[in-house]
Amino acid sequence: MKLGIFDSGLGGLTVVKEIKKVLNNHSIVYLGDTARVPYGTRSAETIVKFAEEDTKFLIDQNVDLIVVACNTVSSLALDVVKKHSSVPVFGVIVPAMEKALKITRNNKIGVVGTRATINSLAYEKVSTRRHASMLVPLIEEGFISGDEINLFIDKYFKDFVDNVDTLILGCTHYPIIKTEIKKYLGDQINLVDPAEEIAGVVLNYVENNKNIDDKDSNDKFYLTDVNPRFIETAKMFLGYDISDKIKKVEI
Amino acid sequence: MKLGIFDSGLGGLTVVKEIKKVLNNHSIVYLGDTARVPYGTRSAETIVKFAEEDTKFLIDQNVDLIVVACNTVSSLALDVVKKHSSVPVFGVIVPAMEKALKITRNNKIGVVGTRATINSLAYEKVSTRRHASMLVPLIEEGFISGDEINLFIDKYFKDFVDNVDTLILGCTHYPIIKTEIKKYLGDQINLVDPAEEIAGVVLNYVENNKNIDDKDSNDKFYLTDVNPRFIETAKMFLGYDISDKIKKVEI
Repeated sequence: MKLGIFDSGLGGLTVVKEIKKVLNNHSIVYLGDTARVPYGTRSAETIVKFAEEDTKFLIDQNVDLIVVACNTVSSLALDVVKKHSSVPVFGVIVPAMEKALKITRNNKIGVVGTRATINSLAYEKVSTRRHASMLVPLIEEGFISGDEINLFIDKYFKDFVDNVDTLILGCTHYPIIKTEIKKYLGDQINLVDPAEEIAGVVLNYVENNKNIDDKDSNDKFYLTDVNPRFIETAKMFLGYDISDKIKKVEI
Repeated sequence: MKLGIFDSGLGGLTVVKEIKKVLNNHSIVYLGDTARVPYGTRSAETIVKFAEEDTKFLIDQNVDLIVVACNTVSSLALDVVKKHSSVPVFGVIVPAMEKALKITRNNKIGVVGTRATINSLAYEKVSTRRHASMLVPLIEEGFISGDEINLFIDKYFKDFVDNVDTLILGCTHYPIIKTEIKKYLGDQINLVDPAEEIAGVVLNYVENNKNIDDKDSNDKFYLTDVNPRFIETAKMFLGYDISDKIKKVEI
């Protein structure tokens, strides 16, 4: 099966990583809109427009399903992606929310994400919601441990301490600093990584649709902008070098 | 005269502010590419493409000149802007460099800017160059004083202490934190704000071309994405509210 995955940029590679852990004999077609990343600071109208273009691109690549790795797009434009898709579409919000509801002991769930995700109606069942807008640029600039990231973890995660027992990491970038977040929050708060949950959903779908053949076993990574820095960042998110599999595209 | 000014986003409003100080009886046509900001982290190829589209938009608005407020575009794509423009084009690099050469006592000049600006050939005559990639998102998120911005000022400006006597603030956002930068660097280092220098250049051109009439005295601010947050940020850069003058456009 040809698994289509798209994201505003490179963060969705954390989703690719989790999917490949459970499904490594299927090919990935990834689209990262690196020419227009980030989406999380933009208006709903612009996010919807970009999501539409991302979807059309993946459909043109003949994918068998579409995973919306981006929490911002999953929050604000999943219906638009579905409208423009002729194949099944999976967003990250529902599986993450289901997991949180399953593991919470007191029903006090929090979510942290981009400004657009937090201002949307997504994750409506949580009791504490907080944007953490600086985390994406910090992680992309490589501040994944040390004073800089910890200053902002303190700033953004303080509200969750003593207020929730389960926290959804509602942006693809945050798993990269999971260790630092865990250190700050302590063992009493469960962290939910939407990337792990969506991987389970995709695995389930693939196992129930074994009739769909994969004619091409090569992973492809399409980016709307490519520079040496993006290739380094991709390595951080995915754990290995994909420079020979990257192709620049216009969408 | 109809003064066309474009920038990757809202930072160019610091240039508008300086131009209006010296020329307030001419109209401004501003384009901020807020749907695709920032430019400074992207490849030269993508910056060139965006600059081309920005230029075409301003030319279609019948401007009498084009000011490239963005240091990144001025560094990497000024020739492209000139190629697509039928009116005079002014970038921020040359006037800033000239000012620095005029005021330096020891010819040790530094420049701080986006990664794209610093990696380009612009500001070639400086002796110390340093990107400060986190400053743009920090300032846009409102961290313009306090621990967060000072942690990064220390990180990025340390190299300039004892090494230069003149420092060019090579990004439209940096004048917003000029007070904090001055506090850190002390009185021994002169700061050059390209916005002030380009304003002088534009004033000079306008005075020498008094024959060009201005048929429309209203300022117009075109943005490729609009949300409440952008309107707040615009106020920070410009000093007053322009929400009734903003129009969303696609380019």
